[in-house]
Amino acid sequence: MNIAIIGAGSTGLLLAAHLSNKHQITCYVRRPEQQKEISQRSIHLYPENERYSVHAELIDRIDVHDLYIICVKQPNLSDIIKTIYKNVPIDKPLLFLQNGMDHIAKLHDVKNPILIGVLDHGANRVNDYTVEHTGKGSIRIGAKNKEDKKLESLIKSLHSNTFPVFWENDWLRMVKKKLCVNAVINPLTALFNVVNGEIVANDNIRFLASKLCKEACEVLQLDEEEMWVYITEVAQKTKTNISSMRKDVIHHAKTEIDAISGYLVKVSQKEIPYTNFVYYAIKSLQTEREDY
Amino acid sequence: MNIAIIGAGSTGLLLAAHLSNKHQITCYVRRPEQQKEISQRSIHLYPENERYSVHAELIDRIDVHDLYIICVKQPNLSDIIKTIYKNVPIDKPLLFLQNGMDHIAKLHDVKNPILIGVLDHGANRVNDYTVEHTGKGSIRIGAKNKEDKKLESLIKSLHSNTFPVFWENDWLRMVKKKLCVNAVINPLTALFNVVNGEIVANDNIRFLASKLCKEACEVLQLDEEEMWVYITEVAQKTKTNISSMRKDVIHHAKTEIDAISGYLVKVSQKEIPYTNFVYYAIKSLQTEREDY
Repeated sequence: MNIAIIGAGSTGLLLAAHLSNKHQITCYVRRPEQQKEISQRSIHLYPENERYSVHAELIDRIDVHDLYIICVKQPNLSDIIKTIYKNVPIDKPLLFLQNGMDHIAKLHDVKNPILIGVLDHGANRVNDYTVEHTGKGSIRIGAKNKEDKKLESLIKSLHSNTFPVFWENDWLRMVKKKLCVNAVINPLTALFNVVNGEIVANDNIRFLASKLCKEACEVLQLDEEEMWVYITEVAQKTKTNISSMRKDVIHHAKTEIDAISGYLVKVSQKEIPYTNFVYYAIKSLQTEREDY
Repeated sequence: MNIAIIGAGSTGLLLAAHLSNKHQITCYVRRPEQQKEISQRSIHLYPENERYSVHAELIDRIDVHDLYIICVKQPNLSDIIKTIYKNVPIDKPLLFLQNGMDHIAKLHDVKNPILIGVLDHGANRVNDYTVEHTGKGSIRIGAKNKEDKKLESLIKSLHSNTFPVFWENDWLRMVKKKLCVNAVINPLTALFNVVNGEIVANDNIRFLASKLCKEACEVLQLDEEEMWVYITEVAQKTKTNISSMRKDVIHHAKTEIDAISGYLVKVSQKEIPYTNFVYYAIKSLQTEREDY
């Protein structure tokens, strides 16, 4: 298949490398330097230290492909949607891989078949063409606006044993579960500057995690007990990992707090004080670091 | 007057030095090394770099004095109360200078005249006989169980222009106000590792501070608007100060979180989630540091 990957951060680079084994990949990027780097040097994947040749193009030269995988971060999504609207035929499926749920509302006007995916890989962008695969996981993908066996088989063609991709019938529940996990693990690990495992290992953080889980489940209408088991499993499995939000705070980068806790605060019908606390706490860490 | 000062931490040393100008002071301490240091070297007061000769004795050799000023921290108070019960005549007034309100309940069985004081000095114990006066303030003192003009004039005799001591008629309100200020400024400055001024300077921390203020005022039945003005004034006035709780977290010492936020959580009739959050957050910082 001929696949466009839009955005070459850690997720985009990881997908481009792995999918290039079986598919023809074009990475669309914003910066000419990154386009040149990926074209000339290939994508380097660690810890294996392997190289994957892919095409790289600037986003304003976007062409026609069989599938578009959109890996840009939430804040850049609106611009990308406009670009796609202008240049991509409406029968071509678009796969969105952002965190949170806020962006899904933005997709209302998009006529193309929309696929929503979540991934639980750990990946760390080292430079413009190098990505480190820090935790192997899988990608789950569902169809938002078209019930179509063709889409399902198209997605299944992405699957390989070394890079698993699964079809998911209940995409909304899948996205909600991911948001719930992120709303618990990300802000707490960032606030207390701890690895994911502390969510379960430290009794006091665990207490706060259970409160955040309860609030997120109420807002998202998920089963609290089931989600708590799931979240503690994720924290255990990724216990030595540094969450993306903690990484962003350490590197003084903008976090995804608005798309995660901020989303819950925005849509909740009633006060969710624990979520509200971490929302403002992470905001304060951002502001503080920008000041100094 | 012949005064016993029990406990020679930062508060005890500061009082002993200043009151020794006009009164005869005996410092009672637990450790023989500190007794020896204070006896031999006097108390050194910075930034003035002045020396104040006082007696120093071990607490189990406690003698009869006109006034006993108890400056030990909350956790050591029960032992001290037992010692006083055994050795101090019941007509001698006892002045308690602890943070929080939890200890006041412990004083129910004490027959002596009880004085309760709060102080807003900044003081930093440098070593067993040296204290740095980092912020000049005052001491306010009220009588808990005896309405007595003699107590009032006794307290007023402690006053000097360089070290002001004021009489307070409504001691309970005074203690509640101090607890409320501590419940807002201490945990937030410790959690975010910032100076007191950030409580008002950082919009996000300020929001959390207003929530903590609201909850504390509800529990303590204080006027929220009035307290918020007062707290922001304190934060402004002490804007470059490092709060005692932040200092304790930095030095991996036990904080007073149980006597402050923990007390509010314990006595509140309803959920106070923001206070609960900082309570567990500070607990988690303590645990974490002890682990490493």
